[in-house]
Amino acid sequence: MRQAGRILPPYRQLRAKHDSILTLFQTPELAAQITLMPVELLEVDAAILFTDLVTPLGPMGCPYEYDPGPIFARPVRTRQDVERLRPLDPESDLPFVLEAVRLVRRGLPAQVPLIGYGGAPFTLAAWLVEGGTSKDFSRCRALLYSDPQTAHLLLDKLTEALIAFLQAQIRAGAQAVQLFDTSAGVLSREAFAQFALPYVQRVCAALAPLGVPRLYFALGVPHCLALLAQTGAEVLSLDWRTDLAEAHRCLGQGLVLQGNLDPCLLYSPPDAIVRQLRRLLETVRGRPHIFNLGHGLLPDVPFANVRLFIDTVHRFSQESP
Amino acid sequence: MRQAGRILPPYRQLRAKHDSILTLFQTPELAAQITLMPVELLEVDAAILFTDLVTPLGPMGCPYEYDPGPIFARPVRTRQDVERLRPLDPESDLPFVLEAVRLVRRGLPAQVPLIGYGGAPFTLAAWLVEGGTSKDFSRCRALLYSDPQTAHLLLDKLTEALIAFLQAQIRAGAQAVQLFDTSAGVLSREAFAQFALPYVQRVCAALAPLGVPRLYFALGVPHCLALLAQTGAEVLSLDWRTDLAEAHRCLGQGLVLQGNLDPCLLYSPPDAIVRQLRRLLETVRGRPHIFNLGHGLLPDVPFANVRLFIDTVHRFSQESP
Repeated sequence: MRQAGRILPPYRQLRAKHDSILTLFQTPELAAQITLMPVELLEVDAAILFTDLVTPLGPMGCPYEYDPGPIFARPVRTRQDVERLRPLDPESDLPFVLEAVRLVRRGLPAQVPLIGYGGAPFTLAAWLVEGGTSKDFSRCRALLYSDPQTAHLLLDKLTEALIAFLQAQIRAGAQAVQLFDTSAGVLSREAFAQFALPYVQRVCAALAPLGVPRLYFALGVPHCLALLAQTGAEVLSLDWRTDLAEAHRCLGQGLVLQGNLDPCLLYSPPDAIVRQLRRLLETVRGRPHIFNLGHGLLPDVPFANVRLFIDTVHRFSQESP
Repeated sequence: MRQAGRILPPYRQLRAKHDSILTLFQTPELAAQITLMPVELLEVDAAILFTDLVTPLGPMGCPYEYDPGPIFARPVRTRQDVERLRPLDPESDLPFVLEAVRLVRRGLPAQVPLIGYGGAPFTLAAWLVEGGTSKDFSRCRALLYSDPQTAHLLLDKLTEALIAFLQAQIRAGAQAVQLFDTSAGVLSREAFAQFALPYVQRVCAALAPLGVPRLYFALGVPHCLALLAQTGAEVLSLDWRTDLAEAHRCLGQGLVLQGNLDPCLLYSPPDAIVRQLRRLLETVRGRPHIFNLGHGLLPDVPFANVRLFIDTVHRFSQESP
């Protein structure tokens, strides 16, 4: 459950003490402390590394500042821009991330795994081309149509960097990895098949020898459901718009699904949360399923409602093993 | 093809002459002139009324200003807020829209129909609850879960207003109407079935006796495809993420589809535009289909590329009648 930090009072205190969120990402002790918070305060079943989508992009030659999200000084839009990108060497470029991984592993209870974190290649490309976030990433979509060769070269370089980044996280102690494709939902199915899927497949294949579960989350891609079976990931995380019953039919038995409660449900009165939650839980009864939200936690949901959500899921799991 | 205006030099000149875009919406002569521009300069086959999603909301008691999109001074979030909403009387509240409709009809060639325009009830509600646009309309989604009665009351009032607004446009001369559900894509399928679909059905049913075609466009709802057959609209406009072949299979023979080229394709070199376009045109050969983009035109696409798109579609239609 990414971004669990923002609802936690100790995270907010830490954030208020530091002018820039970069300090939190780049100081191993702070990043580790934040990664551990949801485990301690919410008793979630796994920790996910506190870092950002854009973390590997700075050392590749794409500096950014937060205002409030990351803004790139020089968007990547031409063949030349892409050719200038440097390969990533995680050990020398991002030692603070790997140190955070090691610290988290030392601090985690033995039964709680640490999930490593990376933005998927298409989403990284979308941010770089746009120069930051965007409602529809139209500049990036324009590049795919107008200069597919350059787009593929960019995706190729980002894929190599991501593989190195995730391999390093695993070597430092991450026991699973999740790829976040939060911008993939702007793509048509055909564009997803051309510009997102093959690169996710390459990442998953490259990580296979390391023997850790690979999780893939894409936002807003119910129109690509059939393609999701081909990523090579063991776990598919679905957003709240994907019908779980249909996902089970479409994706077959080989995959574990994760998700997918609408995070906005957590604004409701407690009885409504429990009622809706149990309805969704019933639809996955008897199947292997990682229960979770269908997107990141919203920063202002009541802490008590998040606890209620987690406790209800735990109770259900005990009732129906 | 909504927002065709922004790529047209005469529209930009007109926009630059007036401090507020409100003047363009509220002056019948200007709104009519802008509505006619794409017909004159691009030779599209139909005109769509130049007005805004939020136009009917001001007189209902929800004033807004543009900065740059509409921002509501007082978002609608409580039962009391909803109860305070006034019913819409288009003839006295929005005479400038109806006068624009009459002027457009006088200026249009006989073979070019005028399509009336309205935001669909859920999308209007989403804007009102949020107080403006939003990436994910999480406040509105929260209201649906936490206080569904209030959400339904709001949707009920907006539906009545929309029916009156579209009836008035038709009486003034609109020969078809299109509902825009541009925020529906944030809903799960179940939420779409509860909070969007029934109100679209009510609008379509109320307009049936007037005998004009009803078009419905929802953005980002490929996960609701099967439900779209139930709106009561004669034409479904699909965004670029919906696979046309699957839509034909899923929606059967009774409906005419409209769409759905990715607007970003129009940033490409001419040969790429024609190639992609003809591929998509081949998938609809032999079926009744209204060829169009899968969303509004982006404001900075080259004018020549839009003409190329339209001319290519016209040429194809003549080849395969």
